[in-house]
Amino acid sequence: MPVDRLSATFAALADPTRRAILARLALSDTSVTELAEPFDMSLPAVSKHLKVLERAGLITRGREAQWRPCRIEPDALRGVDDWLERYRRLWEERLDRLDAYLQTLQAKEKKHRHSPA
Amino acid sequence: MPVDRLSATFAALADPTRRAILARLALSDTSVTELAEPFDMSLPAVSKHLKVLERAGLITRGREAQWRPCRIEPDALRGVDDWLERYRRLWEERLDRLDAYLQTLQAKEKKHRHSPA
Repeated sequence: MPVDRLSATFAALADPTRRAILARLALSDTSVTELAEPFDMSLPAVSKHLKVLERAGLITRGREAQWRPCRIEPDALRGVDDWLERYRRLWEERLDRLDAYLQTLQAKEKKHRHSPA
Repeated sequence: MPVDRLSATFAALADPTRRAILARLALSDTSVTELAEPFDMSLPAVSKHLKVLERAGLITRGREAQWRPCRIEPDALRGVDDWLERYRRLWEERLDRLDAYLQTLQAKEKKHRHSPA
Protein backbone atom coordinates (compact mmCIF):
# COMPACT_ATOMS: atom_id res chain seq x y z
CA MET A 1 0.00 0.00 0.00
CA PRO A 2 1.52 3.35 -0.94
CA VAL A 3 1.92 5.72 1.97
CA ASP A 4 -0.24 8.83 1.62
CA ARG A 5 1.50 12.19 1.67
CA LEU A 6 0.36 13.32 5.10
CA SER A 7 1.37 9.99 6.71
CA ALA A 8 4.83 10.28 5.12
CA THR A 9 5.17 13.83 6.49
CA PHE A 10 4.11 12.82 10.00
CA ALA A 11 6.40 9.76 9.96
CA ALA A 12 9.35 11.92 8.87
CA LEU A 13 8.67 14.35 11.73
CA ALA A 14 8.44 11.57 14.33
CA ASP A 15 12.16 11.77 15.07
CA PRO A 16 13.98 14.43 17.13
CA THR A 17 17.12 14.37 14.93
CA ARG A 18 15.10 14.96 11.78
CA ARG A 19 13.24 17.83 13.46
CA ALA A 20 16.61 19.29 14.57
CA ILE A 21 17.86 19.05 10.96
CA LEU A 22 14.77 20.96 9.79
CA ALA A 23 15.33 23.60 12.47
CA ARG A 24 18.93 24.04 11.26
CA LEU A 25 17.78 24.27 7.62
CA ALA A 26 15.17 26.86 8.58
CA LEU A 27 18.16 29.19 9.20
CA SER A 28 19.95 28.56 5.90
CA ASP A 29 20.73 25.99 3.22
CA THR A 30 23.51 23.72 4.44
CA SER A 31 25.83 21.00 3.15
CA VAL A 32 25.54 17.49 4.58
CA THR A 33 29.00 17.78 6.16
CA GLU A 34 28.02 20.98 7.96
CA LEU A 35 24.72 19.44 9.03
CA ALA A 36 26.47 16.39 10.53
CA GLU A 37 28.85 18.42 12.76
CA PRO A 38 26.59 19.56 15.63
CA PHE A 39 24.83 16.18 15.74
CA ASP A 40 28.01 14.15 16.30
CA MET A 41 26.71 11.66 13.76
CA SER A 42 28.36 9.80 10.90
CA LEU A 43 27.68 11.12 7.40
CA PRO A 44 25.81 7.92 6.42
CA ALA A 45 23.53 8.30 9.46
CA VAL A 46 22.75 11.91 8.53
CA SER A 47 22.25 10.92 4.89
CA LYS A 48 19.68 8.33 5.95
CA HIS A 49 17.68 10.96 7.83
CA LEU A 50 17.96 13.33 4.88
CA LYS A 51 16.55 10.68 2.56
CA VAL A 52 13.47 10.29 4.77
CA LEU A 53 12.98 14.09 4.82
CA GLU A 54 13.53 14.29 1.05
CA ARG A 55 11.02 11.51 0.30
CA ALA A 56 8.44 13.33 2.43
CA GLY A 57 9.06 16.49 0.38
CA LEU A 58 10.29 18.37 3.46
CA ILE A 59 13.71 19.11 1.95
CA THR A 60 15.33 19.19 -1.49
CA ARG A 61 18.99 18.70 -2.41
CA GLY A 62 20.98 20.97 -4.71
CA ARG A 63 22.24 19.50 -7.96
CA GLU A 64 25.80 20.92 -7.83
CA ALA A 65 28.31 18.05 -8.00
CA GLN A 66 30.67 19.38 -5.31
CA TRP A 67 28.30 21.02 -2.92
CA ARG A 68 24.80 19.59 -2.70
CA PRO A 69 23.15 21.95 -0.24
CA CYS A 70 20.04 20.82 1.58
CA ARG A 71 17.13 23.22 1.53
CA ILE A 72 13.98 23.12 3.62
CA GLU A 73 10.66 23.08 1.74
CA PRO A 74 8.29 24.61 4.29
CA ASP A 75 5.34 24.26 1.93
CA ALA A 76 5.29 20.53 2.74
CA LEU A 77 4.31 21.51 6.28
CA ARG A 78 1.22 23.38 5.13
CA GLY A 79 -0.55 20.02 4.80
CA VAL A 80 0.03 19.49 8.53
CA ASP A 81 -1.20 23.02 9.25
CA ASP A 82 -4.37 22.48 7.19
CA TRP A 83 -5.00 19.14 8.90
CA LEU A 84 -4.63 20.82 12.32
CA GLU A 85 -7.28 23.42 11.50
CA ARG A 86 -10.37 21.55 12.69
CA TYR A 87 -8.65 20.49 15.92
CA ARG A 88 -7.45 24.03 16.57
CA ARG A 89 -11.12 24.99 16.68
CA LEU A 90 -11.74 22.19 19.21
CA TRP A 91 -9.15 23.38 21.72
CA GLU A 92 -10.15 27.00 21.27
CA GLU A 93 -13.74 26.02 22.10
CA ARG A 94 -12.48 24.23 25.19
CA LEU A 95 -10.54 27.28 26.31
CA ASP A 96 -13.63 29.45 25.73
CA ARG A 97 -15.72 27.09 27.87
CA LEU A 98 -13.06 27.13 30.60
CA ASP A 99 -13.00 30.91 30.44
CA ALA A 100 -16.79 31.13 30.74
CA TYR A 101 -16.69 28.73 33.69
CA LEU A 102 -14.01 30.77 35.49
CA GLN A 103 -16.05 33.94 34.97
CA THR A 104 -19.11 32.23 36.51
CA LEU A 105 -16.98 31.22 39.49
CA GLN A 106 -15.66 34.77 39.90
CA ALA A 107 -19.16 36.23 39.65
CA LYS A 108 -20.39 33.84 42.37
CA GLU A 109 -17.40 34.71 44.55
CA LYS A 110 -18.12 38.42 44.19
CA LYS A 111 -21.80 37.98 44.99
CA HIS A 112 -20.86 35.93 48.04
CA ARG A 113 -18.53 38.62 49.36
CA HIS A 114 -21.14 41.36 48.98
CA SER A 115 -24.03 39.43 50.51
CA PRO A 116 -24.70 40.08 54.25
CA ALA A 117 -22.99 37.60 56.62
CA MET B 1 15.67 5.30 24.59
CA PRO B 2 12.31 6.76 25.66
CA VAL B 3 10.41 8.38 22.83
CA ASP B 4 9.89 12.11 23.37
CA ARG B 5 6.33 13.41 23.49
CA LEU B 6 6.34 15.19 20.14
CA SER B 7 7.81 12.16 18.33
CA ALA B 8 5.10 9.94 19.85
CA THR B 9 2.42 12.39 18.68
CA PHE B 10 3.81 12.55 15.14
CA ALA B 11 4.20 8.75 14.97
CA ALA B 12 0.59 8.29 16.12
CA LEU B 13 -0.61 10.69 13.40
CA ALA B 14 1.38 8.92 10.65
CA ASP B 15 -1.52 6.60 9.86
CA PRO B 16 -4.70 7.43 7.90
CA THR B 17 -6.92 5.15 10.02
CA ARG B 18 -5.77 6.78 13.25
CA ARG B 19 -6.38 10.23 11.75
CA ALA B 20 -9.85 9.09 10.66
CA ILE B 21 -10.55 7.89 14.22
CA LEU B 22 -9.54 11.31 15.55
CA ALA B 23 -11.78 13.03 12.98
CA ARG B 24 -14.70 10.85 14.16
CA LEU B 25 -13.96 11.60 17.82
CA ALA B 26 -13.81 15.32 17.06
CA LEU B 27 -17.59 15.06 16.50
CA SER B 28 -18.42 13.20 19.73
CA ASP B 29 -17.20 10.64 22.25
CA THR B 30 -17.74 7.15 20.86
CA SER B 31 -17.56 3.52 21.96
CA VAL B 32 -15.01 1.21 20.35
CA THR B 33 -17.79 -0.83 18.70
CA GLU B 34 -19.28 2.27 17.11
CA LEU B 35 -15.82 3.42 16.03
CA ALA B 36 -15.08 0.09 14.34
CA GLU B 37 -18.24 0.09 12.16
CA PRO B 38 -17.42 2.61 9.41
CA PHE B 39 -13.84 1.32 9.16
CA ASP B 40 -14.79 -2.26 8.41
CA MET B 41 -12.12 -3.36 10.86
CA SER B 42 -12.02 -6.00 13.60
CA LEU B 43 -12.34 -4.77 17.18
CA PRO B 44 -8.77 -5.91 18.02
CA ALA B 45 -7.41 -3.94 15.05
CA VAL B 46 -9.27 -0.81 16.18
CA SER B 47 -8.15 -1.37 19.77
CA LYS B 48 -4.53 -1.48 18.63
CA HIS B 49 -4.88 1.90 16.92
CA LEU B 50 -6.64 3.31 20.00
CA LYS B 51 -3.76 2.18 22.21
CA VAL B 52 -1.26 4.09 20.03
CA LEU B 53 -3.48 7.21 20.20
CA GLU B 54 -3.94 6.79 23.96
CA ARG B 55 -0.19 6.40 24.61
CA ALA B 56 0.44 9.59 22.63
CA GLY B 57 -2.12 11.39 24.84
CA LEU B 58 -4.36 12.10 21.83
CA ILE B 59 -7.35 10.26 23.31
CA THR B 60 -8.53 9.04 26.71
CA ARG B 61 -10.87 6.16 27.53
CA GLY B 62 -13.82 6.36 29.90
CA ARG B 63 -13.69 4.27 33.08
CA GLU B 64 -17.26 2.93 32.95
CA ALA B 65 -17.17 -0.88 32.90
CA GLN B 66 -19.89 -1.36 30.26
CA TRP B 67 -19.31 1.57 27.98
CA ARG B 68 -15.77 2.87 27.75
CA PRO B 69 -16.19 5.85 25.45
CA CYS B 70 -13.16 7.20 23.62
CA ARG B 71 -12.62 10.93 23.87
CA ILE B 72 -10.29 13.10 21.85
CA GLU B 73 -7.78 15.22 23.78
CA PRO B 74 -7.12 18.07 21.35
CA ASP B 75 -4.65 19.69 23.76
CA ALA B 76 -2.12 17.02 22.76
CA LEU B 77 -2.12 18.59 19.29
CA ARG B 78 -1.07 22.00 20.60
CA GLY B 79 2.51 20.71 20.79
CA VAL B 80 2.35 20.13 17.03
CA ASP B 81 0.87 23.58 16.54
CA ASP B 82 3.61 25.22 18.62
CA TRP B 83 6.28 23.29 16.75
CA LEU B 84 4.82 24.45 13.42
CA GLU B 85 5.03 28.12 14.43
CA ARG B 86 8.55 28.89 13.21
CA TYR B 87 7.92 27.12 9.88
CA ARG B 88 4.67 28.96 9.40
CA ARG B 89 6.71 32.14 9.45
CA LEU B 90 9.00 30.65 6.77
CA TRP B 91 6.24 29.91 4.30
CA GLU B 92 4.55 33.24 4.96
CA GLU B 93 7.85 35.00 4.16
CA ARG B 94 8.05 33.01 0.95
CA LEU B 95 4.53 34.02 -0.02
CA ASP B 96 5.38 37.66 0.75
CA ARG B 97 8.46 37.45 -1.47
CA LEU B 98 6.41 35.85 -4.25
CA ASP B 99 3.82 38.59 -3.86
CA ALA B 100 6.47 41.31 -4.06
CA TYR B 101 7.94 39.68 -7.15
CA LEU B 102 4.55 39.48 -8.88
CA GLN B 103 3.91 43.14 -8.12
CA THR B 104 7.28 44.04 -9.69
CA LEU B 105 6.34 42.06 -12.78
CA GLN B 106 2.96 43.79 -13.01
CA ALA B 107 4.55 47.22 -12.58
CA LYS B 108 7.01 46.44 -15.40
CA GLU B 109 4.18 45.17 -17.58
CA LYS B 110 2.23 48.39 -17.00
CA LYS B 111 5.24 50.59 -17.75
CA HIS B 112 5.83 48.64 -20.93
CA ARG B 113 2.26 49.13 -22.13
CA HIS B 114 2.34 52.86 -21.52
CA SER B 115 5.75 53.49 -23.06
CA PRO B 116 5.77 54.69 -26.70
CA ALA B 117 6.10 51.85 -29.22
